[in-house]
Amino acid sequence: MRDVNDILGKEKLKTKPQNFSSFRERLHEVIFEANDFAGKAFDVVLILMIFLSIVVLMMESVPAYYAVYKDAFFYLEFAITVFFTIEYALRIYSVYSPKYYITSFFGIIDLLSTLPFYLAFFFPSFQTLMIVRSLRLLRIFRVFKLDAFIDQGNFIMAALKESSKKIMLFSFAMFILITIFGSIMYLVEHDVNENFDSIPRSVYWAVVTITTVGYGDISPVTAFGQFLASVVMLTGYVIIAVPTGIVTANVVQKQSNKKNLTESCPFCLKEGHEKGAKYCNACGHALNE
Amino acid sequence: MRDVNDILGKEKLKTKPQNFSSFRERLHEVIFEANDFAGKAFDVVLILMIFLSIVVLMMESVPAYYAVYKDAFFYLEFAITVFFTIEYALRIYSVYSPKYYITSFFGIIDLLSTLPFYLAFFFPSFQTLMIVRSLRLLRIFRVFKLDAFIDQGNFIMAALKESSKKIMLFSFAMFILITIFGSIMYLVEHDVNENFDSIPRSVYWAVVTITTVGYGDISPVTAFGQFLASVVMLTGYVIIAVPTGIVTANVVQKQSNKKNLTESCPFCLKEGHEKGAKYCNACGHALNE
Amino acid sequence: MRDVNDILGKEKLKTKPQNFSSFRERLHEVIFEANDFAGKAFDVVLILMIFLSIVVLMMESVPAYYAVYKDAFFYLEFAITVFFTIEYALRIYSVYSPKYYITSFFGIIDLLSTLPFYLAFFFPSFQTLMIVRSLRLLRIFRVFKLDAFIDQGNFIMAALKESSKKIMLFSFAMFILITIFGSIMYLVEHDVNENFDSIPRSVYWAVVTITTVGYGDISPVTAFGQFLASVVMLTGYVIIAVPTGIVTANVVQKQSNKKNLTESCPFCLKEGHEKGAKYCNACGHALNE
Amino acid sequence: MRDVNDILGKEKLKTKPQNFSSFRERLHEVIFEANDFAGKAFDVVLILMIFLSIVVLMMESVPAYYAVYKDAFFYLEFAITVFFTIEYALRIYSVYSPKYYITSFFGIIDLLSTLPFYLAFFFPSFQTLMIVRSLRLLRIFRVFKLDAFIDQGNFIMAALKESSKKIMLFSFAMFILITIFGSIMYLVEHDVNENFDSIPRSVYWAVVTITTVGYGDISPVTAFGQFLASVVMLTGYVIIAVPTGIVTANVVQKQSNKKNLTESCPFCLKEGHEKGAKYCNACGHALNE
Repeated sequence: MRDVNDILGKEKLKTKPQNFSSFRERLHEVIFEANDFAGKAFDVVLILMIFLSIVVLMMESVPAYYAVYKDAFFYLEFAITVFFTIEYALRIYSVYSPKYYITSFFGIIDLLSTLPFYLAFFFPSFQTLMIVRSLRLLRIFRVFKLDAFIDQGNFIMAALKESSKKIMLFSFAMFILITIFGSIMYLVEHDVNENFDSIPRSVYWAVVTITTVGYGDISPVTAFGQFLASVVMLTGYVIIAVPTGIVTANVVQKQSNKKNLTESCPFCLKEGHEKGAKYCNACGHALNE
Repeated sequence: MRDVNDILGKEKLKTKPQNFSSFRERLHEVIFEANDFAGKAFDVVLILMIFLSIVVLMMESVPAYYAVYKDAFFYLEFAITVFFTIEYALRIYSVYSPKYYITSFFGIIDLLSTLPFYLAFFFPSFQTLMIVRSLRLLRIFRVFKLDAFIDQGNFIMAALKESSKKIMLFSFAMFILITIFGSIMYLVEHDVNENFDSIPRSVYWAVVTITTVGYGDISPVTAFGQFLASVVMLTGYVIIAVPTGIVTANVVQKQSNKKNLTESCPFCLKEGHEKGAKYCNACGHALNE
Repeated sequence: MRDVNDILGKEKLKTKPQNFSSFRERLHEVIFEANDFAGKAFDVVLILMIFLSIVVLMMESVPAYYAVYKDAFFYLEFAITVFFTIEYALRIYSVYSPKYYITSFFGIIDLLSTLPFYLAFFFPSFQTLMIVRSLRLLRIFRVFKLDAFIDQGNFIMAALKESSKKIMLFSFAMFILITIFGSIMYLVEHDVNENFDSIPRSVYWAVVTITTVGYGDISPVTAFGQFLASVVMLTGYVIIAVPTGIVTANVVQKQSNKKNLTESCPFCLKEGHEKGAKYCNACGHALNE
Repeated sequence: MRDVNDILGKEKLKTKPQNFSSFRERLHEVIFEANDFAGKAFDVVLILMIFLSIVVLMMESVPAYYAVYKDAFFYLEFAITVFFTIEYALRIYSVYSPKYYITSFFGIIDLLSTLPFYLAFFFPSFQTLMIVRSLRLLRIFRVFKLDAFIDQGNFIMAALKESSKKIMLFSFAMFILITIFGSIMYLVEHDVNENFDSIPRSVYWAVVTITTVGYGDISPVTAFGQFLASVVMLTGYVIIAVPTGIVTANVVQKQSNKKNLTESCPFCLKEGHEKGAKYCNACGHALNE
């Protein structure tokens, strides 16, 4: 079963090559593991740098702050980017399979965390690319090496994975429903309501309505339009039960899978003993290991 | 048990008539089945045409695009409609029971996918009917012949079907609640708030509020009105638990019903035994392994 | 266990008094039961009259319709009220315990369905009371004598009843949360945002926000206010899981209560047999009845 | 297991010191217990005073009321604060461990319930602190000594506690999602839409949208922005299933854990046997009936 460790690209990075110096091995431990103080300290510093870089990214975008602290933001961002660049180089140097790492999900994220700054520096027209730095936040997931969270993550991912086909089918049905509702609403409203001026916009309205978001930037004005809108709202309100029911059922099932359903008492045949039970609780006979 | 295949009208279309030429039989396989390359290719082409036709329908409705590409849209729509017309004719020709097909759900959808274009062509006043083409999207459900999705679809439909009576009762109670809340709100607000100018509009407001959509196009301004609105909101926020609970319980139950549905008792023919059952619980006869 | 029949006041109305004429008995059957054609016809007519009266109530409130059909509405309402008055009188005449009926929930609803019209007729200042007629809709619940819906209703009511204490506690915690959030928001915003002009209005905003309704009639403008609002929204988004979880668990439990958990096989002691099972499905031994 | 009683700080307050006068003991019973009439009466009075103080706090903030009843509000608040001050002093006097009480959660809340009034009285600049009085509402939770609600509270807390790690992980993933969505939306909209004037504001929009609140104070105007917003809405609409599923599964599990928690094996002392178990499943010894 694919789990969070797989997605983090750790599984395939496990095989150590033959001539791997002890320095690179040590570096590997610090950067990719969190078994000792140095490894954990590295993770903490990395998380702090990621958060700092996000704060800088956000503050920079506020006109009032940018006017005053423009230079400070630039030097901070410069320092952060240099730090991430060195980190990226060290990762390539100390990883068991550099090729696999560079093309992996997190390898690309790592590169995207540094590249935009250099591009924007040399080609000012790439300024807008700076927003790509927000993807740095995704790197935090890699740092999560705490066992408890890995387990919880695996649990949620597994439950979602089992629901995925049903959720996809549900999403597809919703897509069709939204398109049809949007088209009908366009027909009903567009003559008297300039907000419903095209089907794509009406479909956008249908999304806003069926998900119960309801901005109010587009809302029906005709009596029949409001009646139709009511139908869309009630549909959205009730069908949320479907994905919720699907996911919940999978979580319930995964969680109740703590009983040894296949094991039966060799004497009285009672099935469904607690995990770790040594004796049958119906007849007292010893259970097979 | 009725399932997706039933709704798709496939069950009743299964009996092949006596004198059915091998050409019609081959056509039948390509159009109605997806067992070989030709059948699957036909489905893929059909899905692409459906999506193309929806894209044209949407783009056509955007004034900016319509002004420029009016002619292109017309010829594209013309080509798509001719394609669907031929497909419709071939379906009637190759289906085992044309009469049943034409009056079936998808037979009508198929007809509605082509008719509006011709009507609008000859009678320009039928222009608004063109929106009916959005129903073409529903045809995609028929094309879903992939087993995995059929199973998932059947599963969700079965869970919803078992919940349907309870959901209907819940919907009816909500309808009454909404009407009463809307009427009271009209009484409270309509003297000072022109947005609550009639009970139907107040009922529309109640729907917008209880489903937690909240456009804000109509909102209470009096203190008592806002208090009442708070009650409606909290009601809507909490009672969503009811349909969710009902659907979830049915999904959980269906999923834990790991029953051997295919196994029947060799003596009394009872079906649906628990997994691992060794004896029929109706007659006590040993079950086959 | 209290059920829908109790709430409908039927249980306590069951004991027939000594000298009860056969005419009154027949009337009782038609009005209070739905066992024969007359009883079912009476119910259908009643439901139609209730819906008609609600339609009149709604149309009357639309200024455009009222201007034109004022008289028609009055005579229709007059006819409906006379019908309900006769029905009310017949109910008192044919019920086993008039005193209990008059003071019961539905007895009061029945009276309120007729009284406002007479009051408004004689005392025009009671005009606003007319809205009370919307409560007539509640009467429909009494007419629901179809077994299937009674069962479903009892099921939902029972599941909700078992959840009621937890839901009450949850609602109370939400009430406290909303008040505190509203008060803090008043402190943060009221100097710069005239919409947060008092704590009650801020509390109203907190309800609109935590229930994810979000009208937008009141929304924060300061950076800190928007941060706080984000906390309120995320709180509302996540804690909906609590009532949903509680209700769902009770529905799941009620639904899985179909196994005879207490019955065990007299030979192999296996427990948890299907309801109606006659033989143990583990050893084939007959079960005790 | 930590429960509501722990949070209320009762467990650690249980050990009575050596020289504790019978008067203090009696006072302790009245204030901290609810076993007799005096204890229950004290709780009722306290709840009434808390509600009264919240009503005063709210009314005071309404300009129209404040203009007229300014003095009445002051004297009422004065009386309430004196009452709470005396109560606070009596609590310190009669509690078994004053030091622990003063630094406990409720000890601090109790202090905060009185302090702001005195501070505002002597230093008018502390006026805004008065809002802290809204925290008084939290004190109501302590008064809930009714067994039924304690049980329900413990049940909900336990279910939430078991879900807490998963909910934290989910919240963290949502935080990252919201930041990335907000940043991208800033890039897409800020050139043409003055409402997306900084990333923090765009992140605020993302929270408003993903939680399906949808004020409409900030909404996308470009076609691509509306498409992205639709993705955010549908994401928020569907992923609500995750926390709901997690909490529901824990509630279901807790509720089906119809375990005999009080029964322990007479031989190995293992607790928590299945209902109906006749033998200990750890050591095989017969259980007492």
